[in-house]
Amino acid sequence: MIVVMEPSATGGQIDAVVSRVKDLGLGAHLSAGEERTIIGVVGTSPLPPTLDEMLEVYPGVERVLRVTKKYKLSGWDFHPRKTRIPVLDFEIGGDEVIVIAGPCSVESEEQTLATARAVKAAGAKILRGGAYKPRTSPYEFRGLGTRGLEILAQARAETGLAIITEVMTPADVETIAPYTDIFQIGARNCQNYYLLEEVGKAGKPVMLKRGMSMTIEEWLLAAEYVLSQDNPNVMFCERGIRTYETQTRNTFDVAAVPVVQRLSHLPILVDPSHASGKRPFVGPLALAGVAAGADGLMIEVHPNPDHALSDGNQSLNFAEFDELMPRLSAVAAAVGRRVESGATVAR
Amino acid sequence: MIVVMEPSATGGQIDAVVSRVKDLGLGAHLSAGEERTIIGVVGTSPLPPTLDEMLEVYPGVERVLRVTKKYKLSGWDFHPRKTRIPVLDFEIGGDEVIVIAGPCSVESEEQTLATARAVKAAGAKILRGGAYKPRTSPYEFRGLGTRGLEILAQARAETGLAIITEVMTPADVETIAPYTDIFQIGARNCQNYYLLEEVGKAGKPVMLKRGMSMTIEEWLLAAEYVLSQDNPNVMFCERGIRTYETQTRNTFDVAAVPVVQRLSHLPILVDPSHASGKRPFVGPLALAGVAAGADGLMIEVHPNPDHALSDGNQSLNFAEFDELMPRLSAVAAAVGRRVESGATVAR
Amino acid sequence: MIVVMEPSATGGQIDAVVSRVKDLGLGAHLSAGEERTIIGVVGTSPLPPTLDEMLEVYPGVERVLRVTKKYKLSGWDFHPRKTRIPVLDFEIGGDEVIVIAGPCSVESEEQTLATARAVKAAGAKILRGGAYKPRTSPYEFRGLGTRGLEILAQARAETGLAIITEVMTPADVETIAPYTDIFQIGARNCQNYYLLEEVGKAGKPVMLKRGMSMTIEEWLLAAEYVLSQDNPNVMFCERGIRTYETQTRNTFDVAAVPVVQRLSHLPILVDPSHASGKRPFVGPLALAGVAAGADGLMIEVHPNPDHALSDGNQSLNFAEFDELMPRLSAVAAAVGRRVESGATVAR
Amino acid sequence: MIVVMEPSATGGQIDAVVSRVKDLGLGAHLSAGEERTIIGVVGTSPLPPTLDEMLEVYPGVERVLRVTKKYKLSGWDFHPRKTRIPVLDFEIGGDEVIVIAGPCSVESEEQTLATARAVKAAGAKILRGGAYKPRTSPYEFRGLGTRGLEILAQARAETGLAIITEVMTPADVETIAPYTDIFQIGARNCQNYYLLEEVGKAGKPVMLKRGMSMTIEEWLLAAEYVLSQDNPNVMFCERGIRTYETQTRNTFDVAAVPVVQRLSHLPILVDPSHASGKRPFVGPLALAGVAAGADGLMIEVHPNPDHALSDGNQSLNFAEFDELMPRLSAVAAAVGRRVESGATVAR
Repeated sequence: MIVVMEPSATGGQIDAVVSRVKDLGLGAHLSAGEERTIIGVVGTSPLPPTLDEMLEVYPGVERVLRVTKKYKLSGWDFHPRKTRIPVLDFEIGGDEVIVIAGPCSVESEEQTLATARAVKAAGAKILRGGAYKPRTSPYEFRGLGTRGLEILAQARAETGLAIITEVMTPADVETIAPYTDIFQIGARNCQNYYLLEEVGKAGKPVMLKRGMSMTIEEWLLAAEYVLSQDNPNVMFCERGIRTYETQTRNTFDVAAVPVVQRLSHLPILVDPSHASGKRPFVGPLALAGVAAGADGLMIEVHPNPDHALSDGNQSLNFAEFDELMPRLSAVAAAVGRRVESGATVAR
Repeated sequence: MIVVMEPSATGGQIDAVVSRVKDLGLGAHLSAGEERTIIGVVGTSPLPPTLDEMLEVYPGVERVLRVTKKYKLSGWDFHPRKTRIPVLDFEIGGDEVIVIAGPCSVESEEQTLATARAVKAAGAKILRGGAYKPRTSPYEFRGLGTRGLEILAQARAETGLAIITEVMTPADVETIAPYTDIFQIGARNCQNYYLLEEVGKAGKPVMLKRGMSMTIEEWLLAAEYVLSQDNPNVMFCERGIRTYETQTRNTFDVAAVPVVQRLSHLPILVDPSHASGKRPFVGPLALAGVAAGADGLMIEVHPNPDHALSDGNQSLNFAEFDELMPRLSAVAAAVGRRVESGATVAR
Repeated sequence: MIVVMEPSATGGQIDAVVSRVKDLGLGAHLSAGEERTIIGVVGTSPLPPTLDEMLEVYPGVERVLRVTKKYKLSGWDFHPRKTRIPVLDFEIGGDEVIVIAGPCSVESEEQTLATARAVKAAGAKILRGGAYKPRTSPYEFRGLGTRGLEILAQARAETGLAIITEVMTPADVETIAPYTDIFQIGARNCQNYYLLEEVGKAGKPVMLKRGMSMTIEEWLLAAEYVLSQDNPNVMFCERGIRTYETQTRNTFDVAAVPVVQRLSHLPILVDPSHASGKRPFVGPLALAGVAAGADGLMIEVHPNPDHALSDGNQSLNFAEFDELMPRLSAVAAAVGRRVESGATVAR
Repeated sequence: MIVVMEPSATGGQIDAVVSRVKDLGLGAHLSAGEERTIIGVVGTSPLPPTLDEMLEVYPGVERVLRVTKKYKLSGWDFHPRKTRIPVLDFEIGGDEVIVIAGPCSVESEEQTLATARAVKAAGAKILRGGAYKPRTSPYEFRGLGTRGLEILAQARAETGLAIITEVMTPADVETIAPYTDIFQIGARNCQNYYLLEEVGKAGKPVMLKRGMSMTIEEWLLAAEYVLSQDNPNVMFCERGIRTYETQTRNTFDVAAVPVVQRLSHLPILVDPSHASGKRPFVGPLALAGVAAGADGLMIEVHPNPDHALSDGNQSLNFAEFDELMPRLSAVAAAVGRRVESGATVAR
């Protein structure tokens, strides 16, 4: 850590910083330039995580610059190989770009099973479906609860698809665990730390959606909450961030894909449905995500989007999804990856 | 609700929308202009909350415009008088601008009691202090837990100050309730709906901090989760939103004060400490908040900010807080409100 | 246009709006619902562009909803075929995805010619290079001016590449016109309306970079300034918008590609160099842009990025550009377009 | 400047950075820690402004941290006294909080003179009024041009008010100069560097509005363009920044007032009309600005906002302005400043 003093800082102010640093058992190296003094803080073990904030308040301090990263387990330094997360008989984080598809909410047995069959046939590996739904307004449809979980189990049994479903509160982790293969943490809960630790303990893979205005560094730190429970199977999902632009529901930060891959060994997927919020843009964003190197995709599919109880305007119908999959395969192949679309399988 | 069809919409597309609307038991009024057709949707009771999303996906629909507001209990329509929240022997939402002050975290008995005495003497009515702390990184100080609650109780017993403390997860509501006069919901939990309902049920006043990038409409909808539990005592707290500007920790949206007051009968406070993140700006933002009409202030105060375990760089020391209070009084008086600063009391 | 009155609006307030509308020679259709009155404003010709603002201030008005779009010439309504912009012997907006490449600034004859030869060999069709550079600080390198233009002309003569270069002020349009094939309007000048009209008059194709925080609607309106000078050859270039995220220089809004294509017949390109600001992310963003359907790419290339006078950290060197081009070709092919990479040409 | 190498950086990579630094005539001090090496770059004169960008691209470099500020003339280091800008017989930047008021656009002699008289009587010192208007759409009212300037001159002659009006392009500077006391640079032109230099040369005071998404550092750098023309009379005007929140036209960053005052000796004003975009919020934001320490205010006033040709929904009428001024005076007094409202004058 580097403490930059103001040009006008006095000797006493410099001494105060140095003695605070030494009180904490750390070393301080002074470098007195012509214009100002700079203090390098060094230690044998990790520095206190809020040391920068502590030192910033000292009189005469202009800025404190952190040299080391705050996240550890999610970074490459301590885990030099890319994480591959095993799910049933496949992996997330390998060459294959995994496709997750399904309805926003589990609405009925019929709707869910029909979707499961359709997305399976088209090449999806994982079925998504919300049994517990976070809604901005308390007056909206909030999911079928345990009945929804049972329907998902049925779909898994019939199709062999893996299941991902959202958990919204620590008390539900135990209930949901037997029914899901991956826990989804939604954007609104991305910094719900009790929940992150609880799903960490459950031992199953966890997908962390990015918060509405979460920095990538905060995202990696949220992953630390899960990883620090000895659960190594964390994946990220970029779903758009909030900006001033209103043509799309969110702004799809496709650069998050290569940025996360540079900073972390954990897989990153993209969700073009929530990112765009509008059906005609789901395809182009899905293709863009694969081209940028995403390890997977999460796409909303519904038998009859016009009658969906939630997110209908961003869900593809079966024909649209069928048509998209071979295009995803083609782009994946162009960047040295693969998507097993139904068409490919059939060959 | 108004459905704007595209200029090129066909008669069949228009019929499809109309019949969907009628299926839902609603009325549809067509208005065929020279350029395009507009369909007005009317009903006797509240429309389905996601009706706009449902209709937006129909072919030929250009846009759906919502005419009525999504929030109900927090708006003026059903509650034409400003809410005044009783706390001990005073009210939040009346003429007096209530000052909440105290440390970010309860660190020790000594630190908390010294702060309680100091802020009481200066005119504060409520003591803040975190026993459970949300931290971006799992490696930071996360609060004293129940020991922290006991220290707050001691401070209340000694000074007569009311207490506000943060609750982070539904399971803690029952534990914290006996120790606090107001539940604080932090920015990271502003859309943790299980938590909102649980504090709603507890029956004590609730302060909702604004989420990092929450719209004011979403904020009012979050309040609905508490209000719909028959708990009328909800107040808001503006604490800055996330933008591209990095000179301050957040961007203090001071306009949220008059905007919320125009849309809702619920009180709104401001938190200049989190909004600015830097000690020299706390005073100016506090004064701005009072001038804009805030019903209260939440200010971080610490006996020794240089040694605080969290948020030291945005905490005032006792002398700075003492100096600020009479200035807040003066501005409050200038806008027809009052802050009972120690100086005022002493006269 | 639709004027939504407040539930509490009086008859007098409704009459005031209606009579204002009639004064303007427009028609007003009242629709009195159970809860509130809605006034439809209709006219035979385009409504006054600020009519919504005018009516919003009337007492009793809750909101004014614009039904028609503000932009005309850039939209599909009056121009149902996609615009193809002819440049030398090729077109922008057709099947081929056009690649623009070159240095941020023209620094010397040697640097520019070497780059021109390299990018030509790799398949680029247009050479970029700044002779006049907008710099945030007045103390930075601001370009070679007319000497820079001469060097660009030399590169064109030698390689046959078309030229694009930035114009920053109306007075320079005449000077630059003979040397360039396309005028570039930079992000900082995206709402410099005098400049937009002046380049419009010059009659050559114009590329409009998106402003730092410009909405897509504002972007289309900026194009109207050029188009309304009877210059039909306008193209857009998405180069990232400003958000809170700092891992990349800007946030690449890849969704702008399909959104613009849905709203406008004008071509849209992407600039992954400015969007990312960092060399390792240029490739992934370029690939994402092509996959999303971009009509072209603008990529910074420099013989020796480590010694570039500007934007070195986002410029590719020749080897990196050579390696990227066939990958762009592959992705373009996967989405039914083509990029003529050097490798392709060579076959 | 400090170059932080990656933990894995090789000796050769470190040497390459050091030798580049030395080539530029600068010194490099190595500090080899246990985890990584840090290189301090020092020089006797200002470092090249883009040195950080240059060094960031070197292999093995993790980050480059700039220690010195990029702006010079606007900062306190070289100008330790607050700037007071003389205008007619008063100053901007002294104890008095100067009020600028008037219509968005000069629409007619009658409208402008009536407004001038009204705002003068209420205590304003400067008349605002646009003769040349930047409009997002080319189809909106764009001002009266030179006829507008003549009307402003008439208002000045009659009332003794100083004049501020916007200049949009370098070619207009000479035309406008005789008619105005202060040049206004609008938000859309905040980085129009040719214009900034041209108004700098004209020698009259310049007010720089903040760009839609301009950082405060970029704002100070824009001021450098004017200051470096030997024109010391630059003032800033905060008018809101663009965010995701739509309840107000922009988000009023009131913290910009104390932040700019901490970084720069130049005065800073606020524009609550553009910041809010809605009449009911103009008053609260104006009061907040004064409480936060603003050196002045710019407020839109129109005889009949319902019929204004632009910005009617954010303009106060005469009665509203009259009512606001004594409240501004009261808040100014509460923070040790003064606003000379008409009421005060009359006493």
